[in-house]
Amino acid sequence: MKDRSLLMIPGPIEFAPEVLRAMGMATTSHVAPNFIEVFATALDRLREVFLAPNGQPFVVAGSGTLAMDMAAANLVEPGDKALVVNTGVFGDRFGEILERYGAQVTHARAPRPGSVPEPGDVEAMLEDGHFRVMTVTQVDTSTGVAADVKGLAAMGREHDVLVVVDGVCSVAGEELRQDAWGVDLALTASQKAIGVPPGLALLVAGPRAMEAFHSRSAPVVNYYADWSQWLPIMEAYEAREPSYFGTPPVNLIWALNTSLGLILGEGLEARFERHRQVSRAVKAAVAALGMTQVPVSGKIAANTLTAPRFPDGVDGSLLAHVKRAGVILAGGLHPEIKAEYFRIGHMGVVSGADVLATVGALEQGLAGVGYEFQPGAGLTAAQEVFCEA
Amino acid sequence: MKDRSLLMIPGPIEFAPEVLRAMGMATTSHVAPNFIEVFATALDRLREVFLAPNGQPFVVAGSGTLAMDMAAANLVEPGDKALVVNTGVFGDRFGEILERYGAQVTHARAPRPGSVPEPGDVEAMLEDGHFRVMTVTQVDTSTGVAADVKGLAAMGREHDVLVVVDGVCSVAGEELRQDAWGVDLALTASQKAIGVPPGLALLVAGPRAMEAFHSRSAPVVNYYADWSQWLPIMEAYEAREPSYFGTPPVNLIWALNTSLGLILGEGLEARFERHRQVSRAVKAAVAALGMTQVPVSGKIAANTLTAPRFPDGVDGSLLAHVKRAGVILAGGLHPEIKAEYFRIGHMGVVSGADVLATVGALEQGLAGVGYEFQPGAGLTAAQEVFCEA
Repeated sequence: MKDRSLLMIPGPIEFAPEVLRAMGMATTSHVAPNFIEVFATALDRLREVFLAPNGQPFVVAGSGTLAMDMAAANLVEPGDKALVVNTGVFGDRFGEILERYGAQVTHARAPRPGSVPEPGDVEAMLEDGHFRVMTVTQVDTSTGVAADVKGLAAMGREHDVLVVVDGVCSVAGEELRQDAWGVDLALTASQKAIGVPPGLALLVAGPRAMEAFHSRSAPVVNYYADWSQWLPIMEAYEAREPSYFGTPPVNLIWALNTSLGLILGEGLEARFERHRQVSRAVKAAVAALGMTQVPVSGKIAANTLTAPRFPDGVDGSLLAHVKRAGVILAGGLHPEIKAEYFRIGHMGVVSGADVLATVGALEQGLAGVGYEFQPGAGLTAAQEVFCEA
Repeated sequence: MKDRSLLMIPGPIEFAPEVLRAMGMATTSHVAPNFIEVFATALDRLREVFLAPNGQPFVVAGSGTLAMDMAAANLVEPGDKALVVNTGVFGDRFGEILERYGAQVTHARAPRPGSVPEPGDVEAMLEDGHFRVMTVTQVDTSTGVAADVKGLAAMGREHDVLVVVDGVCSVAGEELRQDAWGVDLALTASQKAIGVPPGLALLVAGPRAMEAFHSRSAPVVNYYADWSQWLPIMEAYEAREPSYFGTPPVNLIWALNTSLGLILGEGLEARFERHRQVSRAVKAAVAALGMTQVPVSGKIAANTLTAPRFPDGVDGSLLAHVKRAGVILAGGLHPEIKAEYFRIGHMGVVSGADVLATVGALEQGLAGVGYEFQPGAGLTAAQEVFCEA
């Protein structure tokens, strides 16, 4: 049914065989003791992966957008002021979601696609704004730009705002230290660096976020996203007690626990480093093939994906040629520059071999569209990164 | 990892091997042509399974509660009057959800757990109430009571209300003819008779429901549930065009398409009949073992589950004994009578052999708790139903 192409898009990604086996296991009851144990273990492992030992994890059936929706619906009250550090499509989306729940949203916008807002500008806005919440997209999947979460979170804490990090394209791939960096809530989706097929919204709320939730004066208007429903369920599973609100996605949670075990087995620091190395290799190959990237500088380029601009004379038809060579890449997503670039995801179980397969297919694709380049230049550049290590 | 127990609870159920294989398949891109084809086919098959040829299907990552939330968030505006035909816990839940979105909710309550409201009373309420929406839980999983959807929907249409059917514990098991019966919206979750592991909210909205949505004056306050986001996506998949709002749960949708294919291969009429037969067999066995049921009459008992009352001197410890004999059953759910009964789910791929295995384990469990009965009486009664056929 699935062809054998290598899936190198920024989510869903290639998943570990153990994870896929867990997906296909016969489903057990959501209150069976073996599943309760698995769910409880997964919740605690999320704390470890988010580096948030005092966090409250939430695992709910839904997409990453539900995770964003949950953050906004539970933390924001009508009239609250929210600052969105906006580096692309997912900043726009967070703004839209916050507004849906009555927030007055101000965007600290990147001056152009591929850039980040000046830290000084963000600081000035925080100074003047009296914001209740600040959101930061750690990696905007639409631009491949990584925000400086550590620096922004410190700024936010200084101005007493709740710091919310959209880690959909970062958690478990990009360095994120929720507790140490003062991030009040971080969220992600299963199909990215967490390494589980799509269908789970994952959040870890720190003590200040939970306190803000508990001291709300306005009711939460979104029923499904309301933590009042889910908090007792998460607590019950961790207490190894049967409970029910909505039927949890048993197979996905079993797969999540499997993947979190693999992630912690590798070790977070090793995993961050592997993502950095893979990213360097892909970016070196892209450069050697004469392509620039959407992020305006290497310092703000994500380690979980690469967003190369098409070279002169090459357009989106390149991706069909790459696909024919066995690798699936993604097109552009940012509306202003959609046709000018493409995206290579490299997260999760991605290996050096996957990188070389991808760069090789990219070279074949470039040859297919008649682009002139030194054959093997991309492969050599990528290989050098791996040989250095 | 999973023990070999037979899972006979009212969801999640036992799933077909083909469906589990689809769950465990390597994930492809949500915009890969083969996945687009699968998603499009699944959407169209949902119309067939709901018997709603003109319906608009929605397939979204979430639980059955999200499906209820979606129905309420998109169809109800603040101040609208809603009538909930309430036969258990899920009627209470629909009322709570409708109120969350500003509806004034009236409950037509079953006089006691296991009963249904009098049709004349519902009619009188419709007469007086000027309701915009009426919800009916086709099978309330908490009581095993089946409502007369056909009759209630006809009444609702006469009074020009939008008829919403919670079919979580019924669709693809219990007879439901959305279009012919005048049901404006029906919804379910994947893990029940649809036969797919939990994680999908499934809705089919008829033309009047879509018209009501399009002519809303108040905005939808729930971002994730908002059809404005999802309608273009469902339409794009059916048009075989790539699109993106939230990443769809690729493996679950592939499994959904597989299961819908199996359902349509069996044929809906044959499937309804098989569910009726399996239900008769379980209920005959339960009666032969001297147990009564929560539904106060056989005429209002669901075909997708059976809710036996514990006999005198037997309590919830029975279920642990049944589990030791190899079958997982579910405890009570309705708060008023929770400790007085248990639940046997029999939906989806359930076979006569599964029924006999279940009844046999139930007999062993009853022996284990010292209940006196004629050994084999349940098995004989169930077997007679299958031999008649």
